[in-house]
Amino acid sequence: MAVYTRVNEDELNAFLSEYDIGTAVSFSGITEGVENSNYRLKTTQGDFILTLYEKRVNPDDLPFFINLMGHMAKRGINCPQPVADQQGQVLKTLNNRMAAMVTFLDGTSNNSPSAQRCHAVGKALAAMHLAGDNFDGFRANALDHQAWSALLASCDDSANTLKSGLLSQAQERLDGILKEWPSDLPRGVCHADLFPDNVLFTGDDVTGIIDFYFACIDDFAYDLAIMLNAWCFESDGSFNVTKSRQLVQGYQSIRPLSDDEINAIPILCRGSAMRFFLTRLYDWINTAKDAQVRPHNPMDYWTRLNFHHQVSTPEGYGINRS
Amino acid sequence: MAVYTRVNEDELNAFLSEYDIGTAVSFSGITEGVENSNYRLKTTQGDFILTLYEKRVNPDDLPFFINLMGHMAKRGINCPQPVADQQGQVLKTLNNRMAAMVTFLDGTSNNSPSAQRCHAVGKALAAMHLAGDNFDGFRANALDHQAWSALLASCDDSANTLKSGLLSQAQERLDGILKEWPSDLPRGVCHADLFPDNVLFTGDDVTGIIDFYFACIDDFAYDLAIMLNAWCFESDGSFNVTKSRQLVQGYQSIRPLSDDEINAIPILCRGSAMRFFLTRLYDWINTAKDAQVRPHNPMDYWTRLNFHHQVSTPEGYGINRS
Repeated sequence: MAVYTRVNEDELNAFLSEYDIGTAVSFSGITEGVENSNYRLKTTQGDFILTLYEKRVNPDDLPFFINLMGHMAKRGINCPQPVADQQGQVLKTLNNRMAAMVTFLDGTSNNSPSAQRCHAVGKALAAMHLAGDNFDGFRANALDHQAWSALLASCDDSANTLKSGLLSQAQERLDGILKEWPSDLPRGVCHADLFPDNVLFTGDDVTGIIDFYFACIDDFAYDLAIMLNAWCFESDGSFNVTKSRQLVQGYQSIRPLSDDEINAIPILCRGSAMRFFLTRLYDWINTAKDAQVRPHNPMDYWTRLNFHHQVSTPEGYGINRS
Repeated sequence: MAVYTRVNEDELNAFLSEYDIGTAVSFSGITEGVENSNYRLKTTQGDFILTLYEKRVNPDDLPFFINLMGHMAKRGINCPQPVADQQGQVLKTLNNRMAAMVTFLDGTSNNSPSAQRCHAVGKALAAMHLAGDNFDGFRANALDHQAWSALLASCDDSANTLKSGLLSQAQERLDGILKEWPSDLPRGVCHADLFPDNVLFTGDDVTGIIDFYFACIDDFAYDLAIMLNAWCFESDGSFNVTKSRQLVQGYQSIRPLSDDEINAIPILCRGSAMRFFLTRLYDWINTAKDAQVRPHNPMDYWTRLNFHHQVSTPEGYGINRS
């Protein structure tokens, strides 16, 4: 839950006067998003989200994220559309933070999505991958496989209180993953954080893909593997292969995977589980006790990693090779 | 900021199916309210606030609060209107919490209100006092003057780290207040917590009085004194007598104060400042470091108390005696 920077009514009204989107009707801090401060704004002309970017977002990356949302919206992807002020500016400053206004999207999210929704979101991911083909921005994935060793090295011994010997076991797993890491897979614009809370639905229709603040250029199949982790495990840690099959079939109905991509799915699943395990472990160790946002328990992703370690073929994820 | 109890989409949909207010279009936790969990809900039929009552609210008090909102709304006061389910129930259970749905009100709040708004909110308070005349619920003010000695006694020595000798000075002030405390003033339904963030405006019009969870039967003039504290001090601690004059004039334009009430204003201001000083001091001492809500600094109200200590007549608040 997140509102780190408060915006009062006078500040809001002064800010809104620079836009042509009407005057404020209601304004509430919302608890979505953990990195930034988000407000839901209703004006006389529509509904918007006002985001103030906090310290974990690199300001140099903001034009990439904003331009990408604008590009995707223009290509028909249901995502927030950046709103420009009267000067044509989207990225602005408010209360000493970079800030942007985007359109509000209807829809609700569900942390235990159905197989139907997995199919729909697989299609949506593929459509987003295709829609990014002529986007001319570039942002490397700051959390790709090349970052993981340093991330693990920065986690101190207190990690072992979560599980005895955790650090050395993680190092062993990581060495194995990096040894097998694929290269030369098709790449392009990836969301890189498409968890269930970042997708809005009405019924089984995707009405919104939100939170592009990890978007980057990376392997498409890696983006899919992130989703296999985020969408297909049940809350008890078990893997639901019906959901993974639906997710991949939905994806392939829009963008068929190459043989190389399909063969890489098991290692990509291990790698993406490692990525979220490591960032959650880092946050777990380094989050102050009085922080407003409680860190995720990294062990959920350790369990996923152990599952993937036992799967060696794409068929284990319900994916048929041709 | 507050969402203590999460409600997922399935839980929401099951809950909504018990009402006749349409299906969910969007659903966000909001950061307003510190005692309860609040969600902003848009359905196919309108906008609502869903509140889950957390441990600081006594469940026995909920019927009073809910019935009072219903009464006030029926009497034309702009306040959230409780929404009954298909069985006619307003107070329900969701995720092991008592819960209620109320209508959403447009408007924005401002922590540094203008004198015009002080006038408007004075009128609104008086209208609320009059509208409560035939309300048949009863709830004593659990935080009235009879509760303050015990509250102060429960604050340990760590209070003195805020200011050397604070506890003994507070005891002295409290003794003086209790000695002079008035009796036999006109009483009825009071909001008892009408701070600026509990009043929504569009321009200078009051569009919503919210958060009735301290409402009780108490002296009307005490309710006004709470507002003199909450609305008329500037952020630097100075008292804006133009605002207090407007607040009281607005109030009296709807419900004229008796001479006894006017004469009691100085002591009631001291008492209401003491009440918020004490509860904030208690919370300051007793809030865990990892709590989701940061306590207010009690010293803002200590400063107010010191101001009131130097004022002996209603004229000091810009109030003319007839």
